[in-house]
Amino acid sequence: MRFAAFRHRCCHVLTLVALLAICAQAFAQTDPLPSWNDGPAKQAIVAFVRATTDQSSPTFVPPEARIATFDQDGTLWVEHPMYSQVIYCLERVPAVVKAKPELAKVEPFKTVLSGNREAMAKLSMKDLEKILVATLTGMSVDAFNAEARKWLDTAKDPRWKRPYTELTYLPMQEVLKYLRANGYKTYIVTGGGQDFVRVYAEQTYGIPPEQVVGTAGGTTYGYAKDGQPFLTKEAKLLLNDNNAGKPEGIHLMIGRRPYAAFGNSTGDRQMLEYAKAGDGARLSMLVLHDDATREYAYGPAQGLPATRVGTFTQALYDEATQRGWVVISMKHDWKRIFAFE
Amino acid sequence: MRFAAFRHRCCHVLTLVALLAICAQAFAQTDPLPSWNDGPAKQAIVAFVRATTDQSSPTFVPPEARIATFDQDGTLWVEHPMYSQVIYCLERVPAVVKAKPELAKVEPFKTVLSGNREAMAKLSMKDLEKILVATLTGMSVDAFNAEARKWLDTAKDPRWKRPYTELTYLPMQEVLKYLRANGYKTYIVTGGGQDFVRVYAEQTYGIPPEQVVGTAGGTTYGYAKDGQPFLTKEAKLLLNDNNAGKPEGIHLMIGRRPYAAFGNSTGDRQMLEYAKAGDGARLSMLVLHDDATREYAYGPAQGLPATRVGTFTQALYDEATQRGWVVISMKHDWKRIFAFE
Repeated sequence: MRFAAFRHRCCHVLTLVALLAICAQAFAQTDPLPSWNDGPAKQAIVAFVRATTDQSSPTFVPPEARIATFDQDGTLWVEHPMYSQVIYCLERVPAVVKAKPELAKVEPFKTVLSGNREAMAKLSMKDLEKILVATLTGMSVDAFNAEARKWLDTAKDPRWKRPYTELTYLPMQEVLKYLRANGYKTYIVTGGGQDFVRVYAEQTYGIPPEQVVGTAGGTTYGYAKDGQPFLTKEAKLLLNDNNAGKPEGIHLMIGRRPYAAFGNSTGDRQMLEYAKAGDGARLSMLVLHDDATREYAYGPAQGLPATRVGTFTQALYDEATQRGWVVISMKHDWKRIFAFE
Repeated sequence: MRFAAFRHRCCHVLTLVALLAICAQAFAQTDPLPSWNDGPAKQAIVAFVRATTDQSSPTFVPPEARIATFDQDGTLWVEHPMYSQVIYCLERVPAVVKAKPELAKVEPFKTVLSGNREAMAKLSMKDLEKILVATLTGMSVDAFNAEARKWLDTAKDPRWKRPYTELTYLPMQEVLKYLRANGYKTYIVTGGGQDFVRVYAEQTYGIPPEQVVGTAGGTTYGYAKDGQPFLTKEAKLLLNDNNAGKPEGIHLMIGRRPYAAFGNSTGDRQMLEYAKAGDGARLSMLVLHDDATREYAYGPAQGLPATRVGTFTQALYDEATQRGWVVISMKHDWKRIFAFE
């Protein structure tokens, strides 16, 4: 009898241990954001998803209305010290000059060809625009896509020595997947070139071309000699997808107000305002680059100098507090930053 | 024994009858296009779906690339004798004049207010443009959506005495559903106003706002007195989604070439060319309005006068033949035209 009772008690203990193990495993399996430290940022994301997808929630959102928008540079991947698309354009200059040799003697192409990095860093916005127009327009859509794809397959970031498309933030990739698993359509809404980002967004983020909204130029429809039609990229700007251009671009391309929006700079301010101003549960979040060791720390909100890339000003910080946006500290909220770490 | 043999034979016959009944039922259940007569148009649609979705097909298309685009007016619903959006704009004129009384004495508003249908039918394109600008812009996106929805809920087509949203073609609704059931994303690509069509597309066609591409104006982001942001519809044209504007709009808003495209007039020509020029199996189709009894017959291809609405010219007919597009005869290919019949 004593043995039986012992065995019985053992069974109970074993059952308890097994249950605990199963629970722990289940918890580990179901934590949708494993690269996030527990804290207000992670909690805000989980609470938002519950509030909008639980049928019994007073702020339940029907699946077809679940839209979430993400800035790209500095929000989904590294933008410092220079947007990768700008690097692409600078590296395309020799090929452009080869096709149009008269440009070799003209600024800003002369400076870019010199390879003098110090001089290149001082190029004005107007000079940069000339480079963007020369390297991104005047060719067919298919030719542009092929060139951009070739560059993305070979170019490497000088600090991590990896393709730019590997420099995406693992915690944000988890947010994208978590939202999609809960019925959200995820969009990129970027100041970067719409056509450029569309080349890699599907493979890199699981976001198809039609869910990439970006700075967009016009195209012109025409015919090749054999009668086959094709589109040519023109220098005409249709949408400057920065600042007020972000909600305007969202209206043009999506036609609904997002329930969640993610950014990292003053260029995302209006998008975050627009998302948060809707009724029901809304989530606006800002990534703060405060991790000089694992990534970068920059922006006036930390008393650091403004850079060419996204600026997180004190005014933006204040608006975030006032309007109830959640600031994500890369240093404190993110357990891991990159998948390759 | 004889009785047993008889019973046995009976059993066989009964089994056969039962099998036939089941087969017939299964066929009826699985015919995805029951409102289509069997013929080259229906066969082309079914063959296209098989060729692009059967894993063993050499022209198999991965699900994420399955895009199909549909013109709306005259392709998905009735456009004759006048686009319903134009009727909406004309009927909005009194309210616009009430808010801006100075317009009452100015053309073309004076003519519209007179109610003289003969004079209204003679308004020039420039006059119509003035009416579109006055009735579709200068208000917030939310105010416009509310007005359009109210009108759609109450306005009725004079011939069928039904809401305009009931005048969709049942055979085309079946094509939309059939393509979606086979993994296609269905888009409307319309010369009509993008914001207008987005108001009812989801309920009417199962097509969400973000899958409506149309003629689009700019918006301006601003703030109300209480600090809440909102978008105002501006008179600035961003995309004229007709003719070459259709493939250009598809590139802007979708970023991929459609595998199938459906239209009914010269305004759809470039979209059909663009879809058909891609590699693999492609489907371009044109709806021909040749049913004066059940709907309308119009367009120069039938020796009938050109109308204000979509024109099916002889040149378009010739191009269809030359490029391998399939013409859908409303009269011969469609068993039923409307769901309410």
